[in-house]
Amino acid sequence: MTVVDDIKKKSVPVDEAIELLLPVMEPAGLYEASRHIVKAGGKRLRPAVLLTAAEAVGGDTKTAVPAAVAVELMHTFTLVHDDIMDNDPVRRGLPAVHTIWGEAGGILAGDTLYSKAIEIITEADSDPVRLLKSANILSRTCVEVCEGQWLDIDFEKRDYVSAEEYLEMIEKKTAILFGASAQIGAIIGGADEKVALAMYDYGRLVGLGFQIYDDVLDLVASEEVLGKRQGSDIFEGKRTLLMIHAAEKGAIPRAFGKGSGTKDDIEEAIKVLTDSGSLAYVKDLAVGFVEEGKSKLDILPDSPKKQLLKDMADYMLYRTY
Amino acid sequence: MTVVDDIKKKSVPVDEAIELLLPVMEPAGLYEASRHIVKAGGKRLRPAVLLTAAEAVGGDTKTAVPAAVAVELMHTFTLVHDDIMDNDPVRRGLPAVHTIWGEAGGILAGDTLYSKAIEIITEADSDPVRLLKSANILSRTCVEVCEGQWLDIDFEKRDYVSAEEYLEMIEKKTAILFGASAQIGAIIGGADEKVALAMYDYGRLVGLGFQIYDDVLDLVASEEVLGKRQGSDIFEGKRTLLMIHAAEKGAIPRAFGKGSGTKDDIEEAIKVLTDSGSLAYVKDLAVGFVEEGKSKLDILPDSPKKQLLKDMADYMLYRTY
Repeated sequence: MTVVDDIKKKSVPVDEAIELLLPVMEPAGLYEASRHIVKAGGKRLRPAVLLTAAEAVGGDTKTAVPAAVAVELMHTFTLVHDDIMDNDPVRRGLPAVHTIWGEAGGILAGDTLYSKAIEIITEADSDPVRLLKSANILSRTCVEVCEGQWLDIDFEKRDYVSAEEYLEMIEKKTAILFGASAQIGAIIGGADEKVALAMYDYGRLVGLGFQIYDDVLDLVASEEVLGKRQGSDIFEGKRTLLMIHAAEKGAIPRAFGKGSGTKDDIEEAIKVLTDSGSLAYVKDLAVGFVEEGKSKLDILPDSPKKQLLKDMADYMLYRTY
Repeated sequence: MTVVDDIKKKSVPVDEAIELLLPVMEPAGLYEASRHIVKAGGKRLRPAVLLTAAEAVGGDTKTAVPAAVAVELMHTFTLVHDDIMDNDPVRRGLPAVHTIWGEAGGILAGDTLYSKAIEIITEADSDPVRLLKSANILSRTCVEVCEGQWLDIDFEKRDYVSAEEYLEMIEKKTAILFGASAQIGAIIGGADEKVALAMYDYGRLVGLGFQIYDDVLDLVASEEVLGKRQGSDIFEGKRTLLMIHAAEKGAIPRAFGKGSGTKDDIEEAIKVLTDSGSLAYVKDLAVGFVEEGKSKLDILPDSPKKQLLKDMADYMLYRTY
């Protein structure tokens, strides 16, 4: 079974549990708003990491499903609130929650998703000490995700952001929820603290690679792969790591920040960013993080599930759906 | 010691713990925004209920302080998000969080407060099973608070809201956090489930009385007591239980919904709402809930701390600061 097949397979019990644990109740509007983005797709990558981590330490996935639902709801909560803050009208090809239910609706749907995440993980059928630790990790992670989003907003007001600052921001905003997913999976799966911390590092580093490589994919992958317009980061003038490096080399694609562009503009951008070494820099960095993440798995004995975690790490870079 | 003295006394370790558990970290702006309303006062009523419940079941308050901080932060989180949703520029006599840090800042500060609440309660130094149960109650309560706020927003769009619907709304939006505070205090204090549930009912019913009586205080109490303009609910045309009753009797004060009014208008409103029986109806209802709440304490053996919970319930109605 390929890693893609495994991720898809693992999404089935997670989606079933979401139906069960986040049903439409009264007031129906609140629950419809809360379910809107959860039900709009998403690859359930964080649940897959969590469930595979549980397996890799010798636990079973069934016990870990509620925790997997919790990380997915928590991830969705951040998307719903981010879309309000970033004034982004579309998510996963659908109107964002606040586009349909208004800003108050979006705020409340996000708050509900987060509360449900904690509710679900604190009433799962598992060892209470491990569940308490997991809820603590999830809430601590959420504090840092808020810090990351605050930095992201702050950076938009500034003229200069260093690569180091950018990396801190995406580590908090994106990477550590992968870290928390792997760590919680390991904890629920029965791992000791040392193994669980190694798993956190695995997820965090792989998550960094994932997010950094996103900048590359935005430019070089097709619209079918991206689910959005190719080159949109460039056209929107987004300050990604790719563009921070390019700016330091004085290499600015002609369509950068122009709002839109042609196929030719994309070709030109790829050429400019190849010549400046920016694409290579970002690719190397992403690969480096993913390799470092995989090395954290050395703490585990070899097994097919450990191999699956490695394949999953590679998939974060070479994902094509 | 009067109940007011006791509430003030109990706020001291809570405020100290807040300083310790929610310090200004990086990014400083996020933490300043998160601390803004917490530090702007508030009587720490929910922490007082929680700590007194812990004492009343034979526990010690010291162990329960982190949980008391958690309910206060959770309460503050709902205030910060509500102010955005209600477009309210002022809170506790200060600019609201979103007034100073913008809407994104307000959303993130709220999210941080809520995350910190869960983080703090899940890493308190107490029995893990009791902490897990407490975190579960807190998150479940937050789901219902979101439901209550959703209903509140929904009601504003409607021509007619029944007294029953209004009561459901304030029960969820306000009363159950008092219920959760009493229940969590009892759990951390070592109570069994039956006692903890009775304490939940005590807090919920007293919280209902508290919120209902607020409508009366708004009209009859002085500005010094209220911390806001006397009669402001009437002038703003707010649909409180008082006004729902009055509307059913066809008794509308002349200044209702006029934006502002004079001392004479307040006198007229008091006369109209007295003649219609609305003030008596709301007072009786509030007193009834508080009495019913106090009766839930029958499950506890008599003690000075049990008496304090009763006095605290009465104070919810007759508070004058």
